[in-house]
Amino acid sequence: MPSSSMSRQSPLRQDAVWDVRAQQTVEYEVVLTSDLLAPANNSLARAGISADTPTPARRCVITERTVDKLYGDRMRAYFHAHSVEVHWLVLDSGEEHKDIGSVLRAVTAFDSFGILRRQEPVIAVGGGVLTDIVGFACGMFRRGLPHVKIPTTLIGLVDAGIGAKAGVNHAGGKNRIGCYHPPCTALLDPTFLDTLPDRQISNGLAEILKIALVLDAPLFELLEEFGPLLRSERFQGRTPPSALAGDEVLRRAIGGMLAELEPNLWEHELQRAVDYGHTFSPALEMHAMPELLHGEAVAIDMALTTVISWQRGLLSAAQRDRVLALMTALGLPRTHQACRPELLAGALADTVRHRDGRQRMPLATDIGSAHFVDDLTGDEVRAAAAYLHDPRDH
Amino acid sequence: MPSSSMSRQSPLRQDAVWDVRAQQTVEYEVVLTSDLLAPANNSLARAGISADTPTPARRCVITERTVDKLYGDRMRAYFHAHSVEVHWLVLDSGEEHKDIGSVLRAVTAFDSFGILRRQEPVIAVGGGVLTDIVGFACGMFRRGLPHVKIPTTLIGLVDAGIGAKAGVNHAGGKNRIGCYHPPCTALLDPTFLDTLPDRQISNGLAEILKIALVLDAPLFELLEEFGPLLRSERFQGRTPPSALAGDEVLRRAIGGMLAELEPNLWEHELQRAVDYGHTFSPALEMHAMPELLHGEAVAIDMALTTVISWQRGLLSAAQRDRVLALMTALGLPRTHQACRPELLAGALADTVRHRDGRQRMPLATDIGSAHFVDDLTGDEVRAAAAYLHDPRDH
Repeated sequence: MPSSSMSRQSPLRQDAVWDVRAQQTVEYEVVLTSDLLAPANNSLARAGISADTPTPARRCVITERTVDKLYGDRMRAYFHAHSVEVHWLVLDSGEEHKDIGSVLRAVTAFDSFGILRRQEPVIAVGGGVLTDIVGFACGMFRRGLPHVKIPTTLIGLVDAGIGAKAGVNHAGGKNRIGCYHPPCTALLDPTFLDTLPDRQISNGLAEILKIALVLDAPLFELLEEFGPLLRSERFQGRTPPSALAGDEVLRRAIGGMLAELEPNLWEHELQRAVDYGHTFSPALEMHAMPELLHGEAVAIDMALTTVISWQRGLLSAAQRDRVLALMTALGLPRTHQACRPELLAGALADTVRHRDGRQRMPLATDIGSAHFVDDLTGDEVRAAAAYLHDPRDH
Repeated sequence: MPSSSMSRQSPLRQDAVWDVRAQQTVEYEVVLTSDLLAPANNSLARAGISADTPTPARRCVITERTVDKLYGDRMRAYFHAHSVEVHWLVLDSGEEHKDIGSVLRAVTAFDSFGILRRQEPVIAVGGGVLTDIVGFACGMFRRGLPHVKIPTTLIGLVDAGIGAKAGVNHAGGKNRIGCYHPPCTALLDPTFLDTLPDRQISNGLAEILKIALVLDAPLFELLEEFGPLLRSERFQGRTPPSALAGDEVLRRAIGGMLAELEPNLWEHELQRAVDYGHTFSPALEMHAMPELLHGEAVAIDMALTTVISWQRGLLSAAQRDRVLALMTALGLPRTHQACRPELLAGALADTVRHRDGRQRMPLATDIGSAHFVDDLTGDEVRAAAAYLHDPRDH
């Protein structure tokens, strides 16, 4: 019998007190697969549908302009082949459209589709911005529609498309509003990466490098050996060694990320290793928008904190240079003109609010491990930024 | 070790599959108390703060225009007496302001306050509309701020202020967007009801009557005996019998509601007894806005379904008349000119979408109990509406 059905007298006054306690289990599946758009493959048509239920006759599919241009015809042919009638919504691409207006456009689409609350999972096909927008819209519509994520970018495959967080920017704040609303299924198909520009591959490599730096030294070594090749081949595995390496890099990055997220899906713990590179980058990315991609801002943050770790004696000069050299090899920036002391100080202050009053700042202590500090000073940050601006001065 | 850290090969293809599984426990407290604004009472100043933490020096308090007019001075004096610096936001009152714009005004207030993510619970003081807006804003800001609800209306005390649901109307849809985000604490102080207009008392009595009808026959009898007196005294207990009865009515209504909510906090089960009166009322309320209060629309829905139960032989004519007579005694309407067949058919269709493709319609089978049906016909609804329009025709 639920405790709430009986009130208890408060010891101090004639209050009645009900304690409400409820437990929720969330489960979802992340599948690294291939050829999602091959007509013979029914994974996409049945995405989010349980085994004993027939393939739905209709679906709401949300994608973005760039993906529609590149894959729209194949997607339409695919759903036609599976006799699925699709209600399409095509949103604008790019971080500058990641706002509540785009979320409400998706909400309007659900309404005009007349979507059923549970049995018609929405399908989101696109980059991290698109899947974050759709995830938030699904989270709020009737307090929660199921959805399926099909990331089409590298950063979507290893980061935005596989976690529980969704949300949009607001009033200059990165992901300032959002929710925890995991997809029922994330289908990851690296063949989409074949049409990505190099810069977008680098954007995703930044998040893979993050996992390597704080959690996985062998992944770091894989990136050193194969990163530039994987980038130029866009993870399409043109030769057996690069196919093997690409698969291994993706599995380690995805598995490492999920192992960190799973025990802390609702971020009850605010001290998170995967926040590495995410202390200064949110404000930097918003300030420079649309000039810096998310992964580029994260890379600049990682360069800064790598130098701070070296300043503190946590990393050697050789380790520092190894990290910075790999960033360059992966096509990532180390600094940006916006990295001025005032911006960095403001960024840190906002991150401290986000981490509930403490820095909880992950710093690399070796390649592949990190610890948390609360005592970062403005002087340290300024010195690191100055070093990156011109290492010869130091 | 989390299962996600190891991928498994899919049996069919060379896919890698990660199963992510996470569990969350949510706990909150509902306290029926009194004299929250008495300077000697520290409950409000410490609301949402754990026992081992000092009283915060600052709070973000969100209230509505009507409450600010009636209680603003006392609230300011209260927080001053407890040395709490308050960042105030005063929102417009009324269902027509329950929209995403109001939610974003609260979000802006959190930003300019520079609120910490976990240790500064927001305080919402107002009716159900206000606490629903603030709950949604808190749910989305940085994916979740804690908050405290102080309902100031009867419907807030027994319904909107004590559950986990938050949200706002959108594009003509009642609570079309929202989230599950319970307060850490709800402090219920019936002394606020002293300034409520009679119509607002009736508004809350409708939700109490709902609980009585589907779950609690003794509560129905209490409403028959004391309802009109409680209404005219606005639950202020001017005499010992009315004080006792008022306390009993509130405890039964709150306890009954929480006992239904607690095992189904995220609405995994869409067949909910507390949805009684909420099949036709959402569309009716939105259509007639701002003419009908929420509880009035619920009352009209309950009158309709009471007549349907009688038509089906589930209630006797005497029980039907007892329900309708009590509604009148509580100052509630039975019908409205908007209850035309097309509106009612559209309302039912939208509720079916909300209940994932089935009616899952609670119907009273006796006073104090209900069962669920999926076979309601348009003819039955039309006949019931016609009966309520003019019972002499039948």
